Amino acid sequence: MNQIYYRNLISGINVKVPLMDGSYCTAINFDNAATTPPFHSVIQQIIKFIPFYASVHRGAGYKCQFCTSMYEKTRKVVAKFVNADLDKSTVIFVSNTTEGLNRLSNIFYEKYKKYVVLSTDMEHHSNDLPWRKYELDYVPVDKYGRITLENLEKKLKEYKGKVKIVTISGASNVTGYRNDIYKAAEIVHKYGAKIIVDGAQLVPHAEVNMRKGENNYIDYLVFSAHKMYAPFGGGALIGPKEELEKLEPDYKGGGTVDFVTHDFVMWADDPLKDEPGTPNAIGAIALGTAIKTLQMLGMKNIEKHENSLVKYALYSLRNIPDLKLYCDKDNEAGHISVISFNIEGVHHEIVAKILSYEFGIAVRTGCFCAEPYVQKLVGITPEQMSDIINEKVDPPGMVRVSLGLYNNQREIDILVYALNKIVRNKQAYIDKYKSIDNSLFF
Amino acid sequence: MNQIYYRNLISGINVKVPLMDGSYCTAINFDNAATTPPFHSVIQQIIKFIPFYASVHRGAGYKCQFCTSMYEKTRKVVAKFVNADLDKSTVIFVSNTTEGLNRLSNIFYEKYKKYVVLSTDMEHHSNDLPWRKYELDYVPVDKYGRITLENLEKKLKEYKGKVKIVTISGASNVTGYRNDIYKAAEIVHKYGAKIIVDGAQLVPHAEVNMRKGENNYIDYLVFSAHKMYAPFGGGALIGPKEELEKLEPDYKGGGTVDFVTHDFVMWADDPLKDEPGTPNAIGAIALGTAIKTLQMLGMKNIEKHENSLVKYALYSLRNIPDLKLYCDKDNEAGHISVISFNIEGVHHEIVAKILSYEFGIAVRTGCFCAEPYVQKLVGITPEQMSDIINEKVDPPGMVRVSLGLYNNQREIDILVYALNKIVRNKQAYIDKYKSIDNSLFF
Repeated sequence: MNQIYYRNLISGINVKVPLMDGSYCTAINFDNAATTPPFHSVIQQIIKFIPFYASVHRGAGYKCQFCTSMYEKTRKVVAKFVNADLDKSTVIFVSNTTEGLNRLSNIFYEKYKKYVVLSTDMEHHSNDLPWRKYELDYVPVDKYGRITLENLEKKLKEYKGKVKIVTISGASNVTGYRNDIYKAAEIVHKYGAKIIVDGAQLVPHAEVNMRKGENNYIDYLVFSAHKMYAPFGGGALIGPKEELEKLEPDYKGGGTVDFVTHDFVMWADDPLKDEPGTPNAIGAIALGTAIKTLQMLGMKNIEKHENSLVKYALYSLRNIPDLKLYCDKDNEAGHISVISFNIEGVHHEIVAKILSYEFGIAVRTGCFCAEPYVQKLVGITPEQMSDIINEKVDPPGMVRVSLGLYNNQREIDILVYALNKIVRNKQAYIDKYKSIDNSLFF
Repeated sequence: MNQIYYRNLISGINVKVPLMDGSYCTAINFDNAATTPPFHSVIQQIIKFIPFYASVHRGAGYKCQFCTSMYEKTRKVVAKFVNADLDKSTVIFVSNTTEGLNRLSNIFYEKYKKYVVLSTDMEHHSNDLPWRKYELDYVPVDKYGRITLENLEKKLKEYKGKVKIVTISGASNVTGYRNDIYKAAEIVHKYGAKIIVDGAQLVPHAEVNMRKGENNYIDYLVFSAHKMYAPFGGGALIGPKEELEKLEPDYKGGGTVDFVTHDFVMWADDPLKDEPGTPNAIGAIALGTAIKTLQMLGMKNIEKHENSLVKYALYSLRNIPDLKLYCDKDNEAGHISVISFNIEGVHHEIVAKILSYEFGIAVRTGCFCAEPYVQKLVGITPEQMSDIINEKVDPPGMVRVSLGLYNNQREIDILVYALNKIVRNKQAYIDKYKSIDNSLFF
């Protein structure tokens, strides 16, 4: 599959954006770990669907039946995509991964509040903060920022059966390191716990198989549609019916019940019990359409393609002087197309402004909603931490380049050219951009 | 403004749907209280926006700045629409009203758990079930299903300051009765409580003014975009910054914090604190565009137009023999375009099937997620209730016709014609439809 083919699947790929000097250039988007532009197929499907839009569930009208059918079929598409067994599992539509993880944390609380939740040092805030109401511990990362299976097993051993939930990202949104979720699952199950995989960064980039084998199956998986070319508020939480159906729903109201009086409630079965209010049918259908496009391309092809792109990028970036990469170590389980770095002597936010205003390149800077991880990677001391908390010094940060399947080598070449130029002209760029707002154009 | 003008604003208005006899007719949608078809303007705006779609917040890329600017401007559009003061209030985007009300219930819990929450007998489950973790009481309805201000004040008096939150629908999704939220607000404030208005059914149909006057302002307002011609997972929760900013967010994670370590969290300011994960920018922009279209039409014009439609419908339905209306009483604060009824001797679900399969008319049946209210309206005895709970008899239900601004008299005439035909041929229709599925076509 060539790069032009991939590019032609995406909306807005040729949009020209203004630069500081008044000229325009074709935008380069290297912020795909935050969100992705939509597939044309998704937009076309929504435009086709719109004249038939009506309410999902409980209506005899033709359009209502049609929408319900489309919505319910999408659950099957999602389940098949990650090889979940719909006889035993439920696909619950959520608005994003953060919602899915918070929902799990809340509905689990009564059942698991006396147990320990094990997260990791690598997590996004959305797979850390929701679990803080439990006794929470973190599997440490090694000095390169990688989770090791040994560290996971060590923690599980230490807690002697007190851990019932292990929640771990499929891949990091900071370093791009992938975790071997299947081997992790095997270890987690050996110690009598369940594994939740935050799939936000993994599912768009690699095949995920919830039923890999007898012991290394994934209990719960959560991911967002907007990171996989379908940005309409869709996402999915998949987990075992058997457990979910015994738990009281988190958000309650329309659609979550079978019968209600002032002092009696009979909850509906899943997935309805955990989809409060009128479902975002368009968000779900957008997700389903994106999945079909990804399947048509083949997740293995996408993985291979993105792997070759990220290798090319890493190879090129490594040769830039004064550029420190935070994801440059080999990782057994590989990594997704996310690269974070800093340029010595130039603040990460200034780098981002230069890339945007001089070269039309969009990147992300800061801590990427994974502050504890970034603090570890840059090596913040307890004294520095205290100064940050007291707002005496700026918090740490990085520049992040994250690729989608439609990015290409030419775009990476432009990035490398731009970064080399920045490195060679640090002070001139700093002087030019230090007092320029990062929302200059609006 | 004529009826044809309104119709031409809506997507899918001329779609033909199949009937039981194999022929096709133009679909009539009388299920607008569940969800509404989109405005063309909303779809056009989304299509225009899509090539520029990128992540909201924290990016220096042009598209990111553009999207952030669009997203933040939409807050102002929403605030202006309901006359909220953005210096003192926050507009938080939510995915629907159910989410907004659950969020409020959860973030209020620590502060208000020792107090009484006052809801009403008229509420949708989404403004009842989320509050059941509090000591919860209901303002009773009169025998016609109306809330009276006297009953509200009586309850507030009885609780002698123990009520701090009163949560009430702006209009009922069952009977269409509007509540005088401004007079209610005045009474609620007199007793030192705050008023939450579930605006799901009111905001699409009438002007809502959060700052009507010194004492009759609305503290919190929640509503859904998908009921106002923008079905992309948007909605809004509006409330005072002063209170919201002191409360810990409900869902935690990406975007909700300013600074995090493993044992320290500094929450972000509102609205970001209460918008967990990547925002559904398209959902918000769809809402903003729908609001602009509604404002262009004028909410007072829409209200007048829908009032005349619903009067026409009520007048026509009243003359159908064996048809019992549940919303036929005068109500001081008026009513929105929702009409519920039953036909004696024909189960509500069969009526809906006949309307769909013989006439292409979509209505809703059942309890409309407001079971306690429907139980009161149809007069269920405690014995019947027990039989329902034990699944010995079917729960009660009604047929609901709910109009949008694009419905017209001709469509109402077809409905009346259809209902008259049903009434005159009850047994034949029952025999034909009793064993036919209500998802026949898919």
